[in-house]
Parts: sequence; C-alpha cells; structure tokens
Amino acid sequence: MAIAADHPVGLSIASLADGYRSGTVDPAGVTEACLTRIARDDPALRAFITVAGDSAREQAQESRRRFTEGRPLGPLDGIPIGIKDNINVAGLPCTAGTAAFRTRIPEHDARAVTRLKQGGAVLLGKLNMHEGALGATTDNLMYGRCINPLRPGYTPGGSSGGSAAAVAAGFCAAALGSDTMGSVRVPAAYCGVYGFKPSHDAARSDGVVPLSFTLDCVGPLASTIEDLAILADVLHEGSLRLADRREDVSLAGCRIGVPRQLASVALTPPVASAFARFLDALRDAGAGVTSVDLLHWDPMKARRAGLLISEAEGAAYYRRAVGADFAGLSPEFAAMLRFPERAGLDRVIDAYALIDAVRQSYLDAFSELDFLALPTTPQPSFPHGVEVPVNQADCTALANFARAPAISLPVRGDDLPVGMQLMAAPGDDCRLLSIAAPVDRIIARP
Amino acid sequence: MAIAADHPVGLSIASLADGYRSGTVDPAGVTEACLTRIARDDPALRAFITVAGDSAREQAQESRRRFTEGRPLGPLDGIPIGIKDNINVAGLPCTAGTAAFRTRIPEHDARAVTRLKQGGAVLLGKLNMHEGALGATTDNLMYGRCINPLRPGYTPGGSSGGSAAAVAAGFCAAALGSDTMGSVRVPAAYCGVYGFKPSHDAARSDGVVPLSFTLDCVGPLASTIEDLAILADVLHEGSLRLADRREDVSLAGCRIGVPRQLASVALTPPVASAFARFLDALRDAGAGVTSVDLLHWDPMKARRAGLLISEAEGAAYYRRAVGADFAGLSPEFAAMLRFPERAGLDRVIDAYALIDAVRQSYLDAFSELDFLALPTTPQPSFPHGVEVPVNQADCTALANFARAPAISLPVRGDDLPVGMQLMAAPGDDCRLLSIAAPVDRIIARP
Repeated sequence: MAIAADHPVGLSIASLADGYRSGTVDPAGVTEACLTRIARDDPALRAFITVAGDSAREQAQESRRRFTEGRPLGPLDGIPIGIKDNINVAGLPCTAGTAAFRTRIPEHDARAVTRLKQGGAVLLGKLNMHEGALGATTDNLMYGRCINPLRPGYTPGGSSGGSAAAVAAGFCAAALGSDTMGSVRVPAAYCGVYGFKPSHDAARSDGVVPLSFTLDCVGPLASTIEDLAILADVLHEGSLRLADRREDVSLAGCRIGVPRQLASVALTPPVASAFARFLDALRDAGAGVTSVDLLHWDPMKARRAGLLISEAEGAAYYRRAVGADFAGLSPEFAAMLRFPERAGLDRVIDAYALIDAVRQSYLDAFSELDFLALPTTPQPSFPHGVEVPVNQADCTALANFARAPAISLPVRGDDLPVGMQLMAAPGDDCRLLSIAAPVDRIIARP
Repeated sequence: MAIAADHPVGLSIASLADGYRSGTVDPAGVTEACLTRIARDDPALRAFITVAGDSAREQAQESRRRFTEGRPLGPLDGIPIGIKDNINVAGLPCTAGTAAFRTRIPEHDARAVTRLKQGGAVLLGKLNMHEGALGATTDNLMYGRCINPLRPGYTPGGSSGGSAAAVAAGFCAAALGSDTMGSVRVPAAYCGVYGFKPSHDAARSDGVVPLSFTLDCVGPLASTIEDLAILADVLHEGSLRLADRREDVSLAGCRIGVPRQLASVALTPPVASAFARFLDALRDAGAGVTSVDLLHWDPMKARRAGLLISEAEGAAYYRRAVGADFAGLSPEFAAMLRFPERAGLDRVIDAYALIDAVRQSYLDAFSELDFLALPTTPQPSFPHGVEVPVNQADCTALANFARAPAISLPVRGDDLPVGMQLMAAPGDDCRLLSIAAPVDRIIARP
C-alpha cells in the first residue's frame, strides 16, 4: 500500500495495520511520509503547534521492530496519531492553545496518551486548538489561524480544530481531541471526518488541561467509522466489549428520536436538507424515527448555561494556574473567564440546575428510545473573519449535559460536508458505535 | 395478626400484606390502629407535622374494598406510610420543616408519592424534619423537637428524623425520606431501622422541595430489609428487576472494600466495635474484605464541600421562593444559606470539583470491587441540646457524591443501635438490595 500524498484522507488505521502485517508498508516509512507531508502542507494549515519528529521516528522504529519480530501490540501499533495541545504528552510542550502556557512541559502522559502509547501508537505531535478550548474557530492568535484543509481561508471549527484539520489533511490517521460542548464533533463536521465523544464516565480527563471538569471529555477523531471504533475501544475506561457487540445491532426496528426542540435551532439550508436525507435513510433502513420532547432542553438557554459553567470552572482553574490577573491569556479569553464573577453565584448555580434538568429530560426520553438523531452543527464551515455564529454548539452540547456518548458522521452537504450526530444513553457507548457502522453505510458520504 | 400496640416495630409491609390477603387484618383496621397510636404517642415524639386522618381513612377503605373484591394493587396496597414533609402530597401542607412554608399546599403529588398511591398505599401524613433538610438533629423550632422513640430526649437524627422516628415508633410500616448527604441513612441508624438511598438517577426528585439538586435523592425507610426492597422496587425509575436478581447473589467470593480514609473519621467505641464485628461476619460468610484507597476522598473536606454546594444550591432556591431576605427561615438556616456568597464563586466551584474527583475515585475503586462497607454514622444517637457532632455525614455523603446506591442496616451497639452501610456502583441498586438480605441474616440485630 502506498500513501497517496495528494489524497486528503489517505491513512486509515485499518488499512495501515493491514499493510504493516503484510509488510507492504512499515511504521517508519509511514511516519516519515507523514512528517514530510506535515513539513510541506502545515505551514499553510497550522494544524500543529509542535511537531515531534524525533520521538515519532523513535516510536516508529520500535513499532517496526515489533512487526519484524511478529509481536505487534494491537491495532494501533505503528499508527501515526496527533494529540490536541491540551492533552499532556510527557516531554512535549502542552500549551492548551494559550500563550500563558507556551513553556509548559508536562512530565507525565495524560491517561488517554498512556493508553495510546501502550498500544504502540506513533505520536506525531501536538495539535492547534482554540485558546483554552473555549471557542470553536481555532483562530489562534498565538499559534496561528488553523485552516480547514477542505477550503482555503475557512475555519476547521474548534476547539479541536487542529485535530480535525490534521486528520482531514492526511497528516495522521487519527487524533485526540477534547469535547466540552462539542469541541470534537464540531470540527469533525466542518472538516468531513468522524468524531466521537464518549460517555462522561467512559473517558477520564486525567492529564488534560481542564476547561470544565463537569463537561470535558477526551475523544478521538478519525477518517473512517471503523477507525473511530478501534480508538474508542482502546481509550475506553473499563470494558467496552465492542468486538462482542458490533454484529448484533441492526437498524431495523431501532427507535430513533428527533428532539422537538431542534425546531428552535436555525439550521442553514444545507444542514436542514442533509438532515432530512439522513432521517429518510434511517427510515428506509427500517428504523422508527419519531419526534421526542426533551422537556427541559432549550438549546439556546442550555448552551448559555454550559458556557457559563465552562467559564466559571475554567476561571477557577486559570486563576490558580496563572494568577488572578489571568496573565498571558488573550484579552478575549480572560474577559470570558471574568464574566461569571460579574454574573454572580446564583446565576452560576441556576446554570448547573438547568443542565441537571436537561440531563433528567434526556434520561427520561431514553426510557422509550434507542438513539437520538441531530445535526452536528447548524451550518457548515465558514470563512475565518466573518461574524462567528453563536449557535455552533447548540446541537452538540446536549450530550455533554447528559454525560452521554455522541458520534458525528460526515455526510455530503450542498458544497462543504456537514455532520450528522447520533447520541445514546449514558454508558451505551458500545451500542452507539455498533449502530454507527450500518448507519455509515447508508448515508451519502462527502 | 394483631398489631402489638406496645411493640415499637410491629408493622412490617410483608406481614401486613399477608394479613390482608388472608383476611386476618384489613387496611381500615390497621390504619385506625396507626392513627390511634399516633394520637397517643406522637405528642411526645413529634414525628408528624400533619396527620392526614381523613384522607388516610378513605384510602384505607378503598384498599379494603380492593381486597374484598380480590384485586389488590400490589405489595403496598393498604400499607400505612408516612411522607417526609418536603415531599409534595396534593392537598396536604408541605412545609419542608420551615415556618416560611407553613401555608404551602401543593396541588400535585411528587413523583414518588404518585408511585406509592398507584400501589394503593395509605398515606398517614407528613413527617417532621430538620428545617429545609439542612441539618441532622430534627430539633425543629417551628414544628417541634422530634424525639428518638428508642430513648427519651435523644435525637432521631435527620434530616428525615420524623421518618425514622415514625417507623421506629410503629406509627407506620414505612416512610419516605430524602437524602442529600445522609438524611435517610443517619436517622435510620439512630432509630434502629433500615434506610436506602438509591442511585441518583434511579430516584427522581420531581415534587420535592429541593435543598441540593446535585445531591438530593428520595429514599425509603422501613423496619425490615425485605420491606425496604419492596419499596425500592416500587419507587425505582426504570426496571429494578429485583425479583429476578435476589436469589443469585451470594456473599461467598464477594469483593467488599473498606475505604482506607475511614481512619480519619473519629468513630466512637460502640461504632468502631460494631463495625469490626460487621466485617468479621462478612469474612465468616466468605466475602473477601480488603482495604481500598478512594484517592480523592478526604471525608472531612468532602463533607464541607457537600455542605457548601447544598447551601449554595439551597440559597438559589430559597431566594426565589421566599425572597432575598430569606423571610420566614430561622436565623440559623438563613445564615447557612448566606455563607456561599461570602465564600465566593471560586470556593463553590472548587467544591463541585472536589466532589467530582471523589466520584471519579469511587468509580475507579469499583473496577475491582462489588461493594463498599462503612459505618453509617461515627456515633449512635445523642441527647438533644448537646453540641452536635460535625461529622455525622462523613461516612454517608460519599454515596451522594458518587451518585451511588447505599443502604443502612441497623445492628446492635453497646447500648443504642448503630448503622452499618453497604454501597455499590452507580446503577447497581438491584445487586445492593440483593446482597443486603444475606448480610442482614448474619449481623447482630439491635
């Protein structure tokens, strides 16, 4: 298998693993090709904050040795992966996208990184992100305006914009992101790749620079649904048992709900029509698609509550980390972190109460449902510099509030791709990943 | 079956249901006997805030009719039950133990009350509690100092003190309480009865005057472990499937953990020795009892964090309900609700972060455990008027932080009974109630 240097998504985990096993390619060669591509294309895309060429080459050599000796560590051995720059990799800078942390070098790996390393993955470096993970354009003043590989000048989304851009550009087979209100799924949708936010308790955030301990969740991005499941399996706390379950899930008879409250989200025409086609395809495959009422979920109010909680919890962290004056943070980021103090304690408490009520509504709905279907974002990617839509996370944050798993699948839009989401009950990650495979087969790929 | 009017715990649900089915007693007669006993003994005990004699007699007559016609509604039909006075029963005053709500009469039943009524239960009235559910002595200035039926002048505990006292006094077969940091289990332990706090998501608090939406949980108190399981089954959201599971759980080989951090809780001698006997009995029955480290759980710090969250969330509710001046609340209660504003937003956020970390530690521990064992309280009941121990909830609040189920079993102490707890992983309510039956058979009853 040769790597198509001109193909934006040429590096699936499954096909690389096949190539490694059969000996047609080897981890060192693939890693070198990735580094070459990064050197060539990333100056324009700014997906990376730190390229870790030397350590990646070493890891690739070790992986090659394991394959030569016939003892690879598993499906991730030798797979080139990028890591969002708020996730600690021992010895590499970890900036969380803020100038305040430009010299921060953690000594220990994040829990998710440990799992990847134990699986033999080759870590290519640290990926660009919206400053502090609080925002969804990855127009980073300090580390560069990250560009969507699908369209010059357009945003990759965020906050894990570099993660989605790196996968879409074929810089790596997969990437880790973090998702507080949609930060894995929004950029996955904008860049035409797959993104997964696990159940809150299935992904531990140890070793991740926090924004909101209540909402943060580490999750993978990849270029195929199969790859996403492979990564979810490796990253999952406890036993996902995906291998046992993927076969026995069928769309026929599946009960899929569409939240009535979606009507209040202003979906742009390409997203609205793609979503309609998505639901039609689910129905054609035998799923029962019904409207459901998520009683306490008002997408706009809930998003504002989530934002206030993120700002309040983020402020508590950054005050401790950089001081009460938020030294080194951009004025925009610092202003957002200062807002909750002005809003006052009761408004913050009300925000917690609201997302708790949303969570209850979600659990109630799932007493008669298997999955929820929603678009990922109300619009496709847009040019950097235009006014940023406020509702980017309206459809994604629901899963964070509910502590539930959610997946974003890329589908064809009118021009740029858009994302379609499936969500499941908290803890039902395995079933969600299982149903995503047949769903992926019936949708119109970008 | 006659009701032993002089026996403190003479009304088990299971034995009443047997009597109803065989016709040896009937719901109207039992209800009348309960009302007589309440009229005779409650002026000294102050377990009730409102006795609902008329509606209880009507419900009992309807239940009698169902039994006469051979169509009882289930195991709770005709069973006399008392309801903590922060849980709405349509048409009855619901004070939450505070003077501010002395004229509050809800129009609708709380979700838990609806379930009891649908099961045919006879609701005898509303039970005394610590004001606002924020405190554990039930020394209520407005509605009376509630007395432990086991010892004149002693506290029944709280905040569900009236619920435990009413069950212990034989006023009712069971009671509903609410548990924010131990408010069902602490009084159950002090009064020698059984108390259950379900998983957070297994019990909905709709129609309950809130203290802390993050921590509140409705739960039952009863005089036998069998009765507690019957109630838990009726109250549980979703399918508990207790009937399917109770047989297949054995203590042999069961992995029971004792938190290392218990060493920092000053257990009084009667509790320490009862706990040692409890662990010995578990070991003798074949359980593996080991010490476990709940990494982020410092009982004192966590309790203080839980208290701050309860005060902050309670303040947001009461400010809306009675005004910013907390009109009608006692000075003590109002002062507690004012504290978080003085402490500041960041300390409240830190408290949320701490209990979230405790929850993670709990989940981590359960990757290698079936149950945790702890005493319920560090001391048995104590006289009203003495300095109140600050650590009453140190061993109970852990389950609220973890959103996990916990049961308190009464065991013999040196003088007054004490409580022993078992906790399980969140969602494992069924297994916890199942193992509690064999555990109950091997412990020294009070």
